[in-house]
Amino acid sequence: MIQVKISSSIKNYQIVIKEGIKNTAGSLISSIWSPRKVGIVSDENVATLYLDDLSKQLNALGFEIKPLVVSAGENSKSLTQVADLIKQMAQVGFTRDDGLIALGGGMIGDLTGLTANLYMRGIAYLQIPTSLTAQVDSSVGGKTAVNLAGIKNILGTFYQPDLVIVDPIYLRTLSNRDLVEGYGEVVKTSALAGVDFFDLTGRIQNVAAIRQNALTLIEKAITYKAQIIMADEKEAGNRKFLNFGHTFGHPIEALNHGQMRHGEAVSIGMVTLTRIFEKAKISPAGLTQELIRRLKTVGLPISSNLIGSPEFISLLKNDKKNRHGILNLVVLKAVGNPIIVLEPLNQVEDLLKGVVHELHYCR
Amino acid sequence: MIQVKISSSIKNYQIVIKEGIKNTAGSLISSIWSPRKVGIVSDENVATLYLDDLSKQLNALGFEIKPLVVSAGENSKSLTQVADLIKQMAQVGFTRDDGLIALGGGMIGDLTGLTANLYMRGIAYLQIPTSLTAQVDSSVGGKTAVNLAGIKNILGTFYQPDLVIVDPIYLRTLSNRDLVEGYGEVVKTSALAGVDFFDLTGRIQNVAAIRQNALTLIEKAITYKAQIIMADEKEAGNRKFLNFGHTFGHPIEALNHGQMRHGEAVSIGMVTLTRIFEKAKISPAGLTQELIRRLKTVGLPISSNLIGSPEFISLLKNDKKNRHGILNLVVLKAVGNPIIVLEPLNQVEDLLKGVVHELHYCR
Repeated sequence: MIQVKISSSIKNYQIVIKEGIKNTAGSLISSIWSPRKVGIVSDENVATLYLDDLSKQLNALGFEIKPLVVSAGENSKSLTQVADLIKQMAQVGFTRDDGLIALGGGMIGDLTGLTANLYMRGIAYLQIPTSLTAQVDSSVGGKTAVNLAGIKNILGTFYQPDLVIVDPIYLRTLSNRDLVEGYGEVVKTSALAGVDFFDLTGRIQNVAAIRQNALTLIEKAITYKAQIIMADEKEAGNRKFLNFGHTFGHPIEALNHGQMRHGEAVSIGMVTLTRIFEKAKISPAGLTQELIRRLKTVGLPISSNLIGSPEFISLLKNDKKNRHGILNLVVLKAVGNPIIVLEPLNQVEDLLKGVVHELHYCR
Repeated sequence: MIQVKISSSIKNYQIVIKEGIKNTAGSLISSIWSPRKVGIVSDENVATLYLDDLSKQLNALGFEIKPLVVSAGENSKSLTQVADLIKQMAQVGFTRDDGLIALGGGMIGDLTGLTANLYMRGIAYLQIPTSLTAQVDSSVGGKTAVNLAGIKNILGTFYQPDLVIVDPIYLRTLSNRDLVEGYGEVVKTSALAGVDFFDLTGRIQNVAAIRQNALTLIEKAITYKAQIIMADEKEAGNRKFLNFGHTFGHPIEALNHGQMRHGEAVSIGMVTLTRIFEKAKISPAGLTQELIRRLKTVGLPISSNLIGSPEFISLLKNDKKNRHGILNLVVLKAVGNPIIVLEPLNQVEDLLKGVVHELHYCR
């Protein structure tokens, strides 16, 4: 069992990573929570596979379980859904001593964290991420969010869970596309973390290899992210590095209206951005090709016609790291050495024009 | 000018109290905020009176003002309203560097704080409370909230403002009823704080005297509340004392469906609770009469037929301080000496029966 400890100004908690730990999740939870009402938030798909088992384990230990199953998909990540969950919790008399469990992918984690933060100004919650994206990225760091008016994550909070339980066995029921999207975030983290981790992703040649190496990939990605967020809980400094690929990725994801996964968009974002700064001689020569090699071999997209379009530029303005019309771009000076480059929005437009056709050709 | 400093684990900020400070609020704000987009959240009534003046002051100092005016009344304290404000802010390109100002009573403060906390996971905000309730109570302490499904403050967060500007001049346009409701919270605080403050409220004989002594009453109430919340930011310990009168007050307020003000319900709650514990010889003999004297003389209600009704008991179950069916009741062992008494919900029902008729007779 691997335990990654998170110490923040608000609280300390652990991320526990182990193959098969889902079978004893109940006793792990009961080691930190006294018996109480527990709402298990899950989507229809994950609930069918894993909700009963977890409920039974917790029931046997004296917990009173309230299943809170929502529709699968990004549409459930809304304030309307938060309100509906809160109503259900109030109806069955949840108090401040009760808790929520997020059992699912990134959408479920973000939705559950926000609901837990808001209910009576904050009740305990914990994360059991079941997708690779959620395991390596969204379950760690305490970011909660829902979408509004077509703007992804426009509202949310920072709110830390009591525990994160990560079991690679959940990935067995994940489709290849969902697995590979999460791997996009793993490649991102490996490039930020340094040559050891980047060499490991360099050796992954296909989807089967992701599955075989899942435990190690997850452990390395979480360990890096934990270090970063402990140093910078609220995204004032180094935590921005984790947005490598996201500034250009988010608009691409939004413009595909749910047809493109987050990790796929981040893949395009990383490659586009790195190509720009490789040409500007800030990123090292050949780094874009190294990224493309890791991403293409598992089927991730590396370019999009939408890059640089008027709609794309318009969405960049809503980026949370846009400050007074200046974008904070995360650029790799070298593998393991990210820096922040401040670039006015109108100059970014010109830079994009210079690389779009070239990358399109690479596909 | 009186400055009360709040130091919390998250941030330090000041509450500035001065007669006439609203006329230089702009320069005070510009001493802590660089020029930026600022949304001024206000209700129709307060906006008519005070929004233009504040906007002009801030405009002259380089701020870009977005008025965010909502309907007056408790119905605006909703998630729907939060969503609407966030949409408006996104449309005009608010970023994490921009800010919100709550200009209004308690509803506006609670709504604005929650919106500021949620927008892009948190932007700066400050409070300019214009009602006595908001000045002495809700603007201090960082509690934010909206209502849902008829349950008051069922969802919210803890989120601290950058500054609170308190000017008693705003009270001149407040109706006597609104002023007196706020005074209910002042009497509550005076009983919690100690004999000096309690003696002062003992000398207030009518509504005019509240207006004459407003500055001193506000200063003393805020100073006490600031001490409590600094010692206990998230209501784990002594902050519960501030709920004196609220456990019975909240259901009374809810069952009157907006026809009774918060401070009026708290007045009934304090008297009912103190009578119970005076009879039980926990509160000193005569304290209930002392409270009644202060409250009745300015026209506050001190009893209600609804106390102890089945609907009342049912709402007690939803109290945020209800833990496993046991209510945390704030009881005065003496003036200035509050304690927490744990009482099972079913016993509270019996205790209430013993005092309802008696207090009804006092009216």
